[in-house]
Amino acid sequence: MADSRITALFAPKSLALIGASDRPGALGTVVLANLREAGFAGPLHLVNPGRDAIGGVRAFPAIGAVPGDIDLAIIVTPAATVPGIIRDCAARGVRAAIVMSAGFREAGAAGRALEQEMLAHARAHGLRILGPNCVGVIRSDIGFNGTFSASNALPGRIGLVSQSGALCTAILDWARVNGVGFSSVISTGIGADVDFGEMLDFLAADPLTDSIMLYIEGIHHARPFMSALRNAARGKPVVVMKAGRHAEGSRAAFSHTGALVGSDRVFDAALRRAGALRVADFANFFGVAATLGSGMHTTGRRLAIVTNAGGPGVMAADHAADRGLRLAKLAPQTLARLDAALPAHWSHGNPVDVLGDADAARYTAAFGACLDDPQVDGLIAILTPQALTASEAVARALVKAATGQDKPVLACWMGEPSVASSRALFRAARLPGYRTPEAAVDAFAAISTHGRNRLQLGGRSTPSRPPVAADVAGARALIEAALAQGRSVLTLTESKAVLGAFHIDVVPSLPARSAAEAVARAQEAGFPVAMKILSPDISHKTEVNGVRLHLADAGQVQASFADLTASVARLRPAARIEGVVIEPMARGHEVMVGIARDEVFGPGISFGLGGTLVELLQDAAVALPPLDHHLAADLISRSRAAAYLRPFRGAPPASEAALHELLLRVSAMACELPWLAEMDLNPVVVDAAGARAIDARIVVQAVPADAGPYDHLAIDPDPGP
Amino acid sequence: MADSRITALFAPKSLALIGASDRPGALGTVVLANLREAGFAGPLHLVNPGRDAIGGVRAFPAIGAVPGDIDLAIIVTPAATVPGIIRDCAARGVRAAIVMSAGFREAGAAGRALEQEMLAHARAHGLRILGPNCVGVIRSDIGFNGTFSASNALPGRIGLVSQSGALCTAILDWARVNGVGFSSVISTGIGADVDFGEMLDFLAADPLTDSIMLYIEGIHHARPFMSALRNAARGKPVVVMKAGRHAEGSRAAFSHTGALVGSDRVFDAALRRAGALRVADFANFFGVAATLGSGMHTTGRRLAIVTNAGGPGVMAADHAADRGLRLAKLAPQTLARLDAALPAHWSHGNPVDVLGDADAARYTAAFGACLDDPQVDGLIAILTPQALTASEAVARALVKAATGQDKPVLACWMGEPSVASSRALFRAARLPGYRTPEAAVDAFAAISTHGRNRLQLGGRSTPSRPPVAADVAGARALIEAALAQGRSVLTLTESKAVLGAFHIDVVPSLPARSAAEAVARAQEAGFPVAMKILSPDISHKTEVNGVRLHLADAGQVQASFADLTASVARLRPAARIEGVVIEPMARGHEVMVGIARDEVFGPGISFGLGGTLVELLQDAAVALPPLDHHLAADLISRSRAAAYLRPFRGAPPASEAALHELLLRVSAMACELPWLAEMDLNPVVVDAAGARAIDARIVVQAVPADAGPYDHLAIDPDPGP
Repeated sequence: MADSRITALFAPKSLALIGASDRPGALGTVVLANLREAGFAGPLHLVNPGRDAIGGVRAFPAIGAVPGDIDLAIIVTPAATVPGIIRDCAARGVRAAIVMSAGFREAGAAGRALEQEMLAHARAHGLRILGPNCVGVIRSDIGFNGTFSASNALPGRIGLVSQSGALCTAILDWARVNGVGFSSVISTGIGADVDFGEMLDFLAADPLTDSIMLYIEGIHHARPFMSALRNAARGKPVVVMKAGRHAEGSRAAFSHTGALVGSDRVFDAALRRAGALRVADFANFFGVAATLGSGMHTTGRRLAIVTNAGGPGVMAADHAADRGLRLAKLAPQTLARLDAALPAHWSHGNPVDVLGDADAARYTAAFGACLDDPQVDGLIAILTPQALTASEAVARALVKAATGQDKPVLACWMGEPSVASSRALFRAARLPGYRTPEAAVDAFAAISTHGRNRLQLGGRSTPSRPPVAADVAGARALIEAALAQGRSVLTLTESKAVLGAFHIDVVPSLPARSAAEAVARAQEAGFPVAMKILSPDISHKTEVNGVRLHLADAGQVQASFADLTASVARLRPAARIEGVVIEPMARGHEVMVGIARDEVFGPGISFGLGGTLVELLQDAAVALPPLDHHLAADLISRSRAAAYLRPFRGAPPASEAALHELLLRVSAMACELPWLAEMDLNPVVVDAAGARAIDARIVVQAVPADAGPYDHLAIDPDPGP
Repeated sequence: MADSRITALFAPKSLALIGASDRPGALGTVVLANLREAGFAGPLHLVNPGRDAIGGVRAFPAIGAVPGDIDLAIIVTPAATVPGIIRDCAARGVRAAIVMSAGFREAGAAGRALEQEMLAHARAHGLRILGPNCVGVIRSDIGFNGTFSASNALPGRIGLVSQSGALCTAILDWARVNGVGFSSVISTGIGADVDFGEMLDFLAADPLTDSIMLYIEGIHHARPFMSALRNAARGKPVVVMKAGRHAEGSRAAFSHTGALVGSDRVFDAALRRAGALRVADFANFFGVAATLGSGMHTTGRRLAIVTNAGGPGVMAADHAADRGLRLAKLAPQTLARLDAALPAHWSHGNPVDVLGDADAARYTAAFGACLDDPQVDGLIAILTPQALTASEAVARALVKAATGQDKPVLACWMGEPSVASSRALFRAARLPGYRTPEAAVDAFAAISTHGRNRLQLGGRSTPSRPPVAADVAGARALIEAALAQGRSVLTLTESKAVLGAFHIDVVPSLPARSAAEAVARAQEAGFPVAMKILSPDISHKTEVNGVRLHLADAGQVQASFADLTASVARLRPAARIEGVVIEPMARGHEVMVGIARDEVFGPGISFGLGGTLVELLQDAAVALPPLDHHLAADLISRSRAAAYLRPFRGAPPASEAALHELLLRVSAMACELPWLAEMDLNPVVVDAAGARAIDARIVVQAVPADAGPYDHLAIDPDPGP
């Protein structure tokens, strides 16, 4: 179970408010009012050296004068006073402190010094600190609102952690209006001591928390974050919103992969790997929170829609297709039940249009028929208020149908005053309601995706090291030699050697200086072959007509050598021509496999369509290593190349096994070679027999001497003593 | 100006309610209550054969007994009684009728007969009918609420036309709560008589309407719709929401274009061409309505964001990038003004983070500096309610900054109770407010895109026929010959001939039956050449190793002939091999140009990346013919191929002029050849000198003998007497 000091911080039994006040507008006044209004049952002591009493309650001059055991001190005094107060708290045996005051590292060198001094005092006695510069903590079951937020949280079973204090009030405001409650609300502040990982561990172990919402602006220590996130997501839904999807910019791109895979895609891969669910915008964050608050779960994607108007049903269906959901194909017996219960003009399919004059009885019949159908994984009920619509009666019918249901049931009552009483009913019944069909579909997609992520996470144990034998020492020697020469981009020969050390198949390029040598090399490679100009001065060979493909026999090779070298010499008279290279013709499906290293999360493995258009196409799915077969299959399935690998316009299907094997070997490279900054294998040609890289580009960087293999995901530490 | 009978329908001076009632729950009771509450100033007569008086007001037994002039009859009686009532109304000189009753064509054959009878009576006397099966009409300036909606519209300057009665109440509910008002609300019902085009013409000419919202479920007559839509959009913003983006399904795809271009993409192209703005979901429909209601306009895309919290600013920036907007680069003097007014820690860039403790003065300085910057086209102000935030004072400052501004100013005050009074201020000042940064950005994107569409539409006159000389008769003869043989797919030779009739350059395929003939054809074509197997039994030539590329001289052609035919014979012993075809090697940028015909809107021209992956890539922009250079450029710019046509990885840029010329010729084909069902030119190779089709596939269909050239967009009829 969690550290007792962390428990003292997030679920305290006794409190001291240092800087308590009754001066209007003062932080100490707002926090005191919040603490009192929320009805905390344990002792609450006030500390203010300038006052004997505040609002009729005794105030102590310093924490040292307060009697009895104190779990948590809330500190709202100016930054300069905080180190001394922390020292006194620690000396006094206070277990934890929330420091709301600003003016630490964000205020420059002087603030940074204050922060260090504060931390030194705290660590000397094991006192734990939340903040500084945070909004505080709410723990609803014990009536604890240790924040300066204008809204308290309704009691509930969601744990919220926010890196932005500014958004806390907006989120709490919204949640209150929409009936969404929280078990805990934690504002991290700048995270000088207690970090995201410890907060996640607390909420993961907390029996009052069913699901976790995280608002993240940046992660600095990937490994403890990932460990805690995976641990939490094993047991509970974790929904993450992170700002900064397009803030990639600064990376210099030596490769397609570098240009495609910004740090945000790697962050995305990390969340997916941890079994968490990322939402893209605020509206969805709130919508998903409401849904999760209701405790609904499914791993299915087959949706039934019941509506009293065609248009909103079609909009829901449109949006379901956008989100990768499917409309459930209703079983014959379901259709028969609906035929019996609905007027002849009903839509006779899904969406189930119960028509504009539908009453509660007609809706009830449709709800029952759909929810009983084993082909249906969840239901969205849509109501538009028409002339004779009994909105509230239908709402009651939906609540009744949802009661005791395993399948998610979501409501979309459109309008405002006409459906206000229905919305109140849904809130009371904890049935999630949405204003638009699209929002309801987004919520169902979120529960379904989350269910699948958890299933994936829970059902397998990730290998701690990929099972690939490799000559790591050989690869390292090659890379370090290049770095010693001041080069970060490996030559093709070096790249091939590094790939060879991991048993990754690369098409051989056999150099030939004469026509006779070219024929000999072609015979070694096996016909048909490709012939390409070999010149240190030419990088884009096709531009100078420097490539011949499909050469089928010795005669064609012989003839092509003279033609090719002469032709290039005409077009580029200044280029040094060293001869040609001969490569066997590779035919099959062209894909791209790459590695790009993120500063925080380490290497990400990318996969997508291959060829020179990859940057244009923006088709790169990303996963974190280590991969196993299951994760490799998932990575492939998230790229457009997945469709292309299947039998396509007559081409035979690609060997999935060979592609998986190649991805596992690339995963091993990513784990074992911390020097790899970027790698492009493009194209990789996959046919029915195997997968081979045609071209390779590797960019390396120096790393600290003690850098070991990448294993952020290898070990799941115990969540705490 | 508009037809006086249409004016009588949408802005009546005198009314009769036929079926007036005071029985609780009756439609006639609801409509009467709405009419009275809205305070219509003109005469309102009640008709009910069973009553002498209703609510103390005299009721007439029939319309014939009503004295005086009557503009509009509202009919709520059962369908079976409606034809007779319409006959009486028409005979009595009533100018127009709203038929709310259901039970016409949607109720089968009997209902269809009633509808015909009703229309016959109306047409005999020139009476115009809205509906049947509609919610009615609201005209707010004259206090006319002739609907059974639960909510009346607030007065305003938006005209709303909805094909779904079911959504009317939801939209009106929402608009009322959000302070959005309407000049007119029109529920079309099934549109038996007065159609969308006439409603648009009315709103276009209406001096009380500044902008138009359309909710569409389907269009049956494209030409009058398009004429009215273009006419309306010339003068006023038109925002369209249409359900059914994915409802494409049934078209059999003979070509890439056919598979890619569903009817929804053609509908999209039609709206764009008409200068209207389509929104994808309900949340945006409402958001854009609120924005348009404020009368803001811009054609720019450069956004300034002022915020008191970093995260929401970054979210707005993320979403702006998603929507193709740019963050304004603030001018040096703007930065200097901000430096002078803000604390040292401000973000020093856009988004302008005025920090968590910002007061109204600080916000005011930031608003002024941003709005004065000529690099800024619009402003989004974001506020999160923090400890000391004076939300309402900042809201007042924003309203003041927005007053008299030409640039759009949008508010995003996050939260609910904490910012409720600010929202009320914004509503009172008609300043559009949003709950999330993403919604505010969507709204700005909508005004900007709409501004651009209108600019495009207003600045040019579309050519009535494209200026391309073509042998239409020759093309027609070829197509009709194929159709006479029962074929719908043209042979390659026929396709090339049809393209030739429109002077579209196609790479020649020169057949050769022997090596000697092949050499002769290659010398005609010019080296290097491609050689491809010629066999009626082989369609995928690369699959049987049946293609040789880059053959540089006679020797290579000679050697390849024997090798190629032998190799194919080994792989496909049963295939009839007739020889080879020789084609000059085309090198350049590969794109795809196509035509797909929509049943309602006619031909759409598609453009995108070329090659065999096009279906996978789903990259097809669509435009309606006729194109001119401006529209061709716009079509190209909407495809990913646009980036690819620029200098890319060393390849020279493609000739835009040549590509435009080709698109204009394809546009001429689309207009002049009504037989064209689908056409693929894929790839079209564009280099610095020209654009040539490498392969062509044309699917034709029989059309009525009197089918003329396509000219839906050629003529803009006078909007009415």
